[in-house]
Amino acid sequence: MSSLGLEDIRAAAARIAPHARRTPVQTCASLDDWLGARIFLKCEHLQRAGAFKFRGACNAVLSLSDEEAARGVATHTSGNHGQALALAARLRGIPAHIVMPHDVPRVKQAAVRGYGGVIRHCEPGTRNREQALAAWVAETGATLVHPYNDARIIAGQGTAALELLEEIPDLDVVMAPVSGGGLLGGTALAARGLKPGIRVIGAEPAGADDAIRSLAAGRIIPGEHPQTIADGLRGNLGDLTFPLLREHVERILPASEAGIIEAMRLVWERAKQVIEPSAAVPLAALREQGEALRGLRIGVILSGGNVDLDHLPWRQPPTR
Amino acid sequence: MSSLGLEDIRAAAARIAPHARRTPVQTCASLDDWLGARIFLKCEHLQRAGAFKFRGACNAVLSLSDEEAARGVATHTSGNHGQALALAARLRGIPAHIVMPHDVPRVKQAAVRGYGGVIRHCEPGTRNREQALAAWVAETGATLVHPYNDARIIAGQGTAALELLEEIPDLDVVMAPVSGGGLLGGTALAARGLKPGIRVIGAEPAGADDAIRSLAAGRIIPGEHPQTIADGLRGNLGDLTFPLLREHVERILPASEAGIIEAMRLVWERAKQVIEPSAAVPLAALREQGEALRGLRIGVILSGGNVDLDHLPWRQPPTR
Repeated sequence: MSSLGLEDIRAAAARIAPHARRTPVQTCASLDDWLGARIFLKCEHLQRAGAFKFRGACNAVLSLSDEEAARGVATHTSGNHGQALALAARLRGIPAHIVMPHDVPRVKQAAVRGYGGVIRHCEPGTRNREQALAAWVAETGATLVHPYNDARIIAGQGTAALELLEEIPDLDVVMAPVSGGGLLGGTALAARGLKPGIRVIGAEPAGADDAIRSLAAGRIIPGEHPQTIADGLRGNLGDLTFPLLREHVERILPASEAGIIEAMRLVWERAKQVIEPSAAVPLAALREQGEALRGLRIGVILSGGNVDLDHLPWRQPPTR
Repeated sequence: MSSLGLEDIRAAAARIAPHARRTPVQTCASLDDWLGARIFLKCEHLQRAGAFKFRGACNAVLSLSDEEAARGVATHTSGNHGQALALAARLRGIPAHIVMPHDVPRVKQAAVRGYGGVIRHCEPGTRNREQALAAWVAETGATLVHPYNDARIIAGQGTAALELLEEIPDLDVVMAPVSGGGLLGGTALAARGLKPGIRVIGAEPAGADDAIRSLAAGRIIPGEHPQTIADGLRGNLGDLTFPLLREHVERILPASEAGIIEAMRLVWERAKQVIEPSAAVPLAALREQGEALRGLRIGVILSGGNVDLDHLPWRQPPTR
């Protein structure tokens, strides 16, 4: 693990280049005014499959030997990683086995199937998911691809920050949301590898602040009953990501639920970008906790844009 | 009028360059699949004030002599032109007088005021608006800037197609929605000026198809009680825009209301872009009426992105 560094991220960038989108960097004067800083949005909601997750999944799938690849890949997730892994597998022409609790919304199941993933249902609960996945891996010989606690995934996620800093080299700060730490860990490796003096700051919903508490305690503290609309950010740090965050991340800022919704809505209304709640978390944290960062040039990774347009977090009056 | 041509559009482009945004051109594989064509989206919803309207308004304001400018500009509109003119006037440091019926939603009034525009209320109805505007112009000496039947406006709107074709020269078709014809007329002038063989096609809600009927009849036929969610497209052609459309536009395709909503939602969900219903009209028309255009390379001007996020056109289940 200690060997994971900028060169791995550069290698991942070269590996995924034929498939991943080099997403644009967008600015928005209203957002700058709102935050009192100059914000550069790295638009990973425009990445394939609608989230940064495709970078890591693609890197993992393309890192397999032909022999490994032939047996496919597997994971358990109801979120963006499942869609991303299914798409990456399809691009290599190999099977993707995705374990999901049977109560996952149909729209998410349809998205995985739309990318060619094969779903096996299990009972809800982490243990049930892990058992179902282990059984399926034993049957098929597929390679398990963890959503974040995997060096290939971390290196892949770091390619977003690599591109961001290639395009906007003079950033003072880079920010990303944190769940399991794959994106923030990869971002930190890339940013500090390219520019050792840059500040790397994470953001997390206050209602799912296990990473903040873990960094404070000096050990991984699992979240208990995380409560947040940012459903992509309910995971816990892993033994590969935690040390990266300890070494390279200055701090992790919390964001309130109301702040997340307000920031998300501002990005929709003024930047005209459809982002998911998780992607708004760094902006909300900056608004609420970023006094010391006013006036700086801050790169923010907009992590994804997969939302259910029938269920938006702001109140909808019943009639026009 | 016959003298308006590509050179006017180039002059407008140079004039507005310091202020207008050179908007990106975006592609979306899902949209290409949906339409059976290769679509290039010119992102005018990312233009300043959220719509292409800023181009024309800015060109008009910057075309004024200092003496004229000092007396300000004026218009009557509750839509994007009012916001655009207010912003353009503010950038030149001159007053913008905007007449609006008193029943215009507060969110639209707030947007105009947010850009520094001064609002005077009138009773609803075209005649009341025109009378109130005439009185205000007489008081102030302000220059009336019509939303589309004005050569400076038409030339300004044409700069979007100019940029689009500079970036993607090998388009077969360029499409834009039509209301008063300022955007479509300017688009046609720019596109055919740069590339005489290009096909220019308009799109209009079937429920507000006065431009389709006008072209068929060979004279301007005003719309009666237009019914469409695309509230930017309820205007009628003017005596400057109609001849441009007759000369340069191959045809105007109608779009159903359900089609407009479906296309708008697809752009939100898959391209992750917040566009207003009017901007979805060309895509809906292509889907419903574009069989003969399958397989072509089609540039589409996404006209704007100013929507009320509290009132979306798809049905919202009351609870999650």
